[in-house]
Amino acid sequence: MQDAGNYRDPRPRVRLTGMHVNIFTECNPSPQLEGLWRWPGEYPDAGEPPYTSLSYWTGLAQQLERACIDAVFFADVLGVYDIYGGSWASAAREAVQLPSIDPVPLIPAMAAVTSKLGFAVTYSTTHNPPYLCARLFSTLDHLTGGRIAWNIVTSFLASAEADGLGAYLDHDQRYDRADEYLDVVRALWEDSWEDGAVLRDAAGSGYSDPARIHQIDHDGPWFQVRGPHQCEPSPQRTPVLYQAGASGRGLTFAASNAEVVFVTLADARSGAKKVREIRQRICDLGRDPAAVKILQGMPVLLAESRAEAEARSELYVRMRSREGLLTKWCGWTGIDLAGYPADTPIDQIKTNGARTPLDFIRSSDPDRDWVVDDVRRVVTTEYRPLRGGRWMLFGTAREVADQMERWMTVSGVDGFNLIPCPPISGVRDICELLVPELQRRGLFRTAYADDEPTLRERYFGAGAKVMARQPGSVR
Amino acid sequence: MQDAGNYRDPRPRVRLTGMHVNIFTECNPSPQLEGLWRWPGEYPDAGEPPYTSLSYWTGLAQQLERACIDAVFFADVLGVYDIYGGSWASAAREAVQLPSIDPVPLIPAMAAVTSKLGFAVTYSTTHNPPYLCARLFSTLDHLTGGRIAWNIVTSFLASAEADGLGAYLDHDQRYDRADEYLDVVRALWEDSWEDGAVLRDAAGSGYSDPARIHQIDHDGPWFQVRGPHQCEPSPQRTPVLYQAGASGRGLTFAASNAEVVFVTLADARSGAKKVREIRQRICDLGRDPAAVKILQGMPVLLAESRAEAEARSELYVRMRSREGLLTKWCGWTGIDLAGYPADTPIDQIKTNGARTPLDFIRSSDPDRDWVVDDVRRVVTTEYRPLRGGRWMLFGTAREVADQMERWMTVSGVDGFNLIPCPPISGVRDICELLVPELQRRGLFRTAYADDEPTLRERYFGAGAKVMARQPGSVR
Repeated sequence: MQDAGNYRDPRPRVRLTGMHVNIFTECNPSPQLEGLWRWPGEYPDAGEPPYTSLSYWTGLAQQLERACIDAVFFADVLGVYDIYGGSWASAAREAVQLPSIDPVPLIPAMAAVTSKLGFAVTYSTTHNPPYLCARLFSTLDHLTGGRIAWNIVTSFLASAEADGLGAYLDHDQRYDRADEYLDVVRALWEDSWEDGAVLRDAAGSGYSDPARIHQIDHDGPWFQVRGPHQCEPSPQRTPVLYQAGASGRGLTFAASNAEVVFVTLADARSGAKKVREIRQRICDLGRDPAAVKILQGMPVLLAESRAEAEARSELYVRMRSREGLLTKWCGWTGIDLAGYPADTPIDQIKTNGARTPLDFIRSSDPDRDWVVDDVRRVVTTEYRPLRGGRWMLFGTAREVADQMERWMTVSGVDGFNLIPCPPISGVRDICELLVPELQRRGLFRTAYADDEPTLRERYFGAGAKVMARQPGSVR
Repeated sequence: MQDAGNYRDPRPRVRLTGMHVNIFTECNPSPQLEGLWRWPGEYPDAGEPPYTSLSYWTGLAQQLERACIDAVFFADVLGVYDIYGGSWASAAREAVQLPSIDPVPLIPAMAAVTSKLGFAVTYSTTHNPPYLCARLFSTLDHLTGGRIAWNIVTSFLASAEADGLGAYLDHDQRYDRADEYLDVVRALWEDSWEDGAVLRDAAGSGYSDPARIHQIDHDGPWFQVRGPHQCEPSPQRTPVLYQAGASGRGLTFAASNAEVVFVTLADARSGAKKVREIRQRICDLGRDPAAVKILQGMPVLLAESRAEAEARSELYVRMRSREGLLTKWCGWTGIDLAGYPADTPIDQIKTNGARTPLDFIRSSDPDRDWVVDDVRRVVTTEYRPLRGGRWMLFGTAREVADQMERWMTVSGVDGFNLIPCPPISGVRDICELLVPELQRRGLFRTAYADDEPTLRERYFGAGAKVMARQPGSVR
């Protein structure tokens, strides 16, 4: 493990070579962008849908590896969005992460047809015992040869409690529990089996040396786990730790633990402040800010010409689902926008205490007398890419490459978690139109480096190990 | 679903065509047979061990599919064997399911290189919420195109409690809980999404019709699960249900729920009684005994000649691990045979109430004054295959085929769950020596049938659906 040091300088390191590019996906009909399963020609009318088809996923992996993509990133959710209209009916109609399947079992199948592509998968600390989490990620790290990353999430859907997945905790409790969870799994990965514990000595002392295998004997407020870990050490031991935490407590968690922080900044200029804040927090916790990569998640809609771009922009706006956007926003915020007359002042909207989403919307025009219908309009108004939409990369490959250069330079992020738009042919567009343009500019690798056998080494250089956890640095 | 009926005749149906053959494995260095990782030439001295290597598992799948094997069966355990000597040290030395990895993520990778082979995987009702279990098996059934079976187990290792995997329950409580667990997951699989619920109607009503998707609103003593299920219906909906239950409560559970019962009968003649008992129990519960397959699990050691068979028999006895056998027996029974002087009468051995394992050993010579050392000797005495060992198929392909014919005829089982011995080259021996001999005799298929797209249909014929659960039949 690397030693912790004292780092005072959180300057964004602008590096226009070595951009990191992930492809964001979800195992459902319309990853992230509600309504786009309707995009003409994307989905078959009958037969198996792509997201449940193994050959779709193995083909995707090969396509991404040919384009030298860093990793495929799987978002996930447990439970259903059932706030809007007090029901999951709109989620079912608009395929808002319903139906969906478990992303984890896909990964070894995709690893079997590739040798370099990384896999970052969402797995919740809320519903799975840490002992099983440790076993699962050791398994995935073994089977992928050290190409696995864990996107650490704390599940937020109250509906999951109704499905018997454990008591709903408030935001800060979830992170306290997640902190201890991470202590447990890291101890199982790093401290249970010494490097020399596996002997495979058929003639002599046996398979493993128990003197070099240790229980972890964790006894905390949330978890009691004795150990030892059930798995022998895998190439990375600890998977690359991803985290998306924007709020205060989540940001501290990310700055303390994450090796890759996934952000969704609204625009590059205001985002620069957030990036500096994350790096400063990392410094403050005694970590090297260079040991953390920050990736901006955003949709990308590519076209081969200006004319086609204009047509696709119009189609995009038409395809996005108004009901789907409301379903997800209400699910995320816990606020039912269907539950009020249109002219209800927003101060009368019931929330579970967190008014941030409403305050954020109000801040765009503080003097207006905001009513419920205004909020609904904002939530469902899709930025038109043509008219300078902010949270989207849009245009020809040259235009999008320009936008990405600007994002890197202005905001200081290390790369992108690209959300393909539309979900299937958009991947082809990224690989065949955008990546070659980035490569021509020297912004993106043209081959994977030979001395980076693991995903962690792709991010942090040959021989990189996970940083030691700082006792007391967080809690 | 098939209707339940009244079945009075539990006669074993002896069918010498249509034998079912699975290959039993575990994701650890020495599946089931302690010590055999030492078999000369089986395991590399250095480098990655086969069980953590993806290419080993995909190669195995292709090998088994070429031999028309029904399914690969994955056993599994959570926690460690820590009873013998009060420690898991012997388990580590002898690689008694320590280390091991999670079998589930292997399955889609093995499915991607095959099209007919089935996959039966062990998954515990003890540590995983039923909502997640349902999502996982729907995912596996989608990705394998309907080739998945679930070996339902209730975890028995007290050490798992020390690892934070839930309170240790006694045997009958575990089965009560498992019964309700099965109610929940079957409701999610069968009753939540109607057949016509998925529309994929881009122009019109949306992806799914919420009016044809239902919550299950389960509210029982162990589980509260609202639903709806997160996944759209998969080819089999419910995975083929496997269960290995030999004891009274376990047998009732198996007879009520299982479609394939996995037994380990000590010999064919006495086993016939057990097989009749299982089929009678199935009848008594109103199920058609033809709707349940019974598979005998046993090791197979093949040789190309009599002379080679004799040499391999000697090697087998030498390779088996005495300490490993003690570790597993003590782990299974909860009795620490290392904790007593050799001459302690066995009545003084402490048990957690269940004296069955000791009584079983004593029954072989009831008049003897049994002491601890006698029990240790029995547990570690490997039957020499050459001298008529019972719980093993052994010899040339012709001899083993003879033994299998006799097993089918005498005991009435429908087939086998073969444990390859030694673990790696033993698979090749089964596929290349034994299967051709069975095929020559007309005992085993020479090709997979075209009209059996799912694993359930391979067992029960074209169009087979899971049998409806009988309300009140069990509890």
